[in-house]
Amino acid sequence: MRDVLRVPEGERVDLSAFPADATPAGPSDKAAALADTARMGERLADLQERLYAGSTSGDRRRLLLVLQGMDTSGKGGTVKHVIGLFNPSGCRIKAFKAPTPEEQNHPFLWRIMRELPRPGEIGIFDRSHYEDVLIARVRELVPRAQLGRRYGQINRFEKSLADDGVTVVKVFLHISYEQQRRRLLERLDNPDKHWKFNPGDIEERALWPAYQEAYEIALERCSTDAAPWYLVPSDRKWYRNWAISKLLLEHLEAMDPQYPKADFDVEESRRRLLSEG
Amino acid sequence: MRDVLRVPEGERVDLSAFPADATPAGPSDKAAALADTARMGERLADLQERLYAGSTSGDRRRLLLVLQGMDTSGKGGTVKHVIGLFNPSGCRIKAFKAPTPEEQNHPFLWRIMRELPRPGEIGIFDRSHYEDVLIARVRELVPRAQLGRRYGQINRFEKSLADDGVTVVKVFLHISYEQQRRRLLERLDNPDKHWKFNPGDIEERALWPAYQEAYEIALERCSTDAAPWYLVPSDRKWYRNWAISKLLLEHLEAMDPQYPKADFDVEESRRRLLSEG
Repeated sequence: MRDVLRVPEGERVDLSAFPADATPAGPSDKAAALADTARMGERLADLQERLYAGSTSGDRRRLLLVLQGMDTSGKGGTVKHVIGLFNPSGCRIKAFKAPTPEEQNHPFLWRIMRELPRPGEIGIFDRSHYEDVLIARVRELVPRAQLGRRYGQINRFEKSLADDGVTVVKVFLHISYEQQRRRLLERLDNPDKHWKFNPGDIEERALWPAYQEAYEIALERCSTDAAPWYLVPSDRKWYRNWAISKLLLEHLEAMDPQYPKADFDVEESRRRLLSEG
Repeated sequence: MRDVLRVPEGERVDLSAFPADATPAGPSDKAAALADTARMGERLADLQERLYAGSTSGDRRRLLLVLQGMDTSGKGGTVKHVIGLFNPSGCRIKAFKAPTPEEQNHPFLWRIMRELPRPGEIGIFDRSHYEDVLIARVRELVPRAQLGRRYGQINRFEKSLADDGVTVVKVFLHISYEQQRRRLLERLDNPDKHWKFNPGDIEERALWPAYQEAYEIALERCSTDAAPWYLVPSDRKWYRNWAISKLLLEHLEAMDPQYPKADFDVEESRRRLLSEG
């Protein structure tokens, strides 16, 4: 799965060449995908517990899942359905919004560093520092020269994370323009979902090509060995959840976290407990 | 369930009078409890989404679950099995450890306030400010007069939370001395659980009566209308998970959070989306 979905380093990306409703290397249908995702849940939770256990004896490794995608692409749904498979106490979830005045007074990576997963944790970013080369590019929030420097800053930042034991998994949830329209209409059709709708979302759609281009540049410049990008076709929610579960599983299996060995005398502790009277 | 498990305000509490393996008002057996807990999961997740949705239009209400109990009483297991029923993105979980030097330089409630749930969230404290009248009392970490003042400080703090829209649900996970021994022995029997074991846990058992007394005093002095204590017999894990799910369900139902009404013209948005071409 990692090889199938990984964006090659430094190659030109043309998002229009990737059908958003494709299911590369995936199960043939929804029922099979749901069953397989549920099956992966147990293994994911087991690996997460091992990762956390390892941190109690000095293993500093952790995993950071970065979710990026257009509105309605399913970042929140991924947290609910995929991250929901883990033990919540080991997950550190952060949804980044428009920067606050305090955050704007700092370099753009400042607020990111404060929310990184601690050793043994699985961190999840719903949006991230990539907003600073996405909306910042499309809306021209910073001078072009400053924007241009950010790609290199991001790559060096992510390399330093990798060096410090962070497995960075960056996922672009790729949906089509038409699929976004359907999902926005669904929100309008259901009064319980009106709170998720913002009329400004429709104006943003006029900028769709500019956003796609900004994503293409970010994927091309920032898919590195230390922190590769994965392009997940996300028009089908069941495929999206399956593929991200599979990506997490493969990365956690490669990390191969281990329960630490006892650093105390197990037999003596057992004797003491049994002889307490 | 709230009425059954609630600790009456200002009455003397004798923990030895409460069998830790009881199942008050609960299902008759494990299978029924597991099925009922799973059923509650859907309703809990629905109420959580409503609570979160409400916060997007100004509803400041949130819920704080405080978990306290002796080692092995199941605070972590509750987070895994009960909080795991919710959407993790709306949960703010904090496990409080021994205070850091920075935390010790502040009043004892300082670190607590920093971790409170934001509007729309469900906060979960695995240990809490009650440690400052539990281990602090048993280990005599502060002068007795200072300790005595803390109960009132806690009550005023929790009252201010309630006034600000926080539904505070405090749960004492009540286990027996013998049950703790069994659970510690289980950890010793399973090498994958050795990381959870600390030989110091055995020394702490010598202080069991002092801890029970400290809990009795905290339950008696701090079970208020604004923030009542619930005593959950926890020798049976299936009952513990069922009872806490039920307590959360009752509190969320009483809060009765509502999806906000659209503050935009739904028909106009629909027309614009359909006429985009």
